[in-house]
Amino acid sequence: MTVTIIGVGLIGGSLALALKDNGLAGKVIGVESNNHHAQRALELGLVDEIKTLTEAISSSQLVVLAIPVTQVMQALPSVLDHVTNQVVMDVGSTKEGVIAAVTNHKNRSRFVATHPMWGTEYSGPEAAQHQAFREKATVICNREESDGEAVALVENLYRQLGMHLLYMNAKDHDVHVAYISHISHITSFALANTVLEKEKEEDAIFELASAGFASTVRLAKSNPATWTDVFRENRENVLDVLNEHISQLRKFKASLEKENYEYLEELMTNANKIKRILK
Amino acid sequence: MTVTIIGVGLIGGSLALALKDNGLAGKVIGVESNNHHAQRALELGLVDEIKTLTEAISSSQLVVLAIPVTQVMQALPSVLDHVTNQVVMDVGSTKEGVIAAVTNHKNRSRFVATHPMWGTEYSGPEAAQHQAFREKATVICNREESDGEAVALVENLYRQLGMHLLYMNAKDHDVHVAYISHISHITSFALANTVLEKEKEEDAIFELASAGFASTVRLAKSNPATWTDVFRENRENVLDVLNEHISQLRKFKASLEKENYEYLEELMTNANKIKRILK
Repeated sequence: MTVTIIGVGLIGGSLALALKDNGLAGKVIGVESNNHHAQRALELGLVDEIKTLTEAISSSQLVVLAIPVTQVMQALPSVLDHVTNQVVMDVGSTKEGVIAAVTNHKNRSRFVATHPMWGTEYSGPEAAQHQAFREKATVICNREESDGEAVALVENLYRQLGMHLLYMNAKDHDVHVAYISHISHITSFALANTVLEKEKEEDAIFELASAGFASTVRLAKSNPATWTDVFRENRENVLDVLNEHISQLRKFKASLEKENYEYLEELMTNANKIKRILK
Repeated sequence: MTVTIIGVGLIGGSLALALKDNGLAGKVIGVESNNHHAQRALELGLVDEIKTLTEAISSSQLVVLAIPVTQVMQALPSVLDHVTNQVVMDVGSTKEGVIAAVTNHKNRSRFVATHPMWGTEYSGPEAAQHQAFREKATVICNREESDGEAVALVENLYRQLGMHLLYMNAKDHDVHVAYISHISHITSFALANTVLEKEKEEDAIFELASAGFASTVRLAKSNPATWTDVFRENRENVLDVLNEHISQLRKFKASLEKENYEYLEELMTNANKIKRILK
């Protein structure tokens, strides 16, 4: 099959590689508004050719939107305008806004809303990786709003990439990712800013940076434009989680201020329950 | 040389292995108040024998305290009481309190205050690892208060383990580790509690846990007793950093509440400067 990928950055580029590596796409066409990225995607062999949106759609059986979520919301209606019997899917980090943008579109049922749970802190075509999605989860949202045959194509594709599938409505998805992904990014960004602020006075501070620091701050290297977009789209859920997180931090603060070390230890013993989840 | 290690958990056990693997200790004697840990340390080959404190000190050239910092503060004066020409070192996470506990001790100069910057979220003798300290930093604090020959022995030991040395006064050390290690643990513990709180309503939440989440929450598996001890000992510095961190998080919150996405992106662009440090 010929696949069009709109946006050949970290996710789009990695998906292009995965589709080729697994024999799922004979040809991958890239659509890319950034000329430098388009050029690099060709040079790196992520895509076979770069075309305009309408040319690309008419030559493809599957169209994947791998651009930031607000751009998906803008582009998706016109992508669906051009669709005859193609399947269209997105891979964005939030789902409610994207689905709402095409709810009444005559070709809504050709669109499958998905979110493969993989990413790194890097961005652009150079960040694309082989074997990126293997053994991770993909969420498919509001499956009942898509044609059964379109869903089957997308499910089969993800399974062939070694992913397992989860089904959720868009609303629940957006709440869950706020907890399981978005807040981790905010804490990392904020932690980096905390330490960078101190570094202005104490230039030796990073000489001590340990593996624990590297692990908690890694996500602070993530792309600001991408994440502004994600946080804007999932604003209410992210604010809820951020408030809860600040209130959890305040418990640590209060226990230290009051020198209530029994309570402090209790807070950490509770946090240890995460061992059930993270092996 | 014969080395006594007081406390054969994660750090003491790993140090025992490193000393043997690198031919630095012909014999390692363990001193361990937890009988089960003592037994496991023998079975795992971390130590050659278990002895009482006074027996162990008199048979050794080097004594290492690898117990939680508050226990170091209690034990160190009596360890120094028994010292003739042995070198004593600790490996604790905070340094001001430990050094203050022996400032006026007649054998103070036999003690070298150190902090090897390595650890994992696991604890106990079973968590001990070979090659643990390689390519990490060790801080030596208040070097001028220790005998030159004692410092030389400790420096040589750490260099042979593949570590590079940093020198700092205890006060600066404790500020720096609050920024570079302690706050990371608090944010991880608090993040785990944030998500575990939500899990009470939504049991599917962890199905989506991604690599980013695993990375930021990893430290929440750390030992509560150990970290209560560290936070107690470094209370004022940790509170300073925690306040700064909460205020950094509030900037994210304010920018989202006011829908000031330009400022939000600016905050993340600033955080990206961490790339200079974390490759």
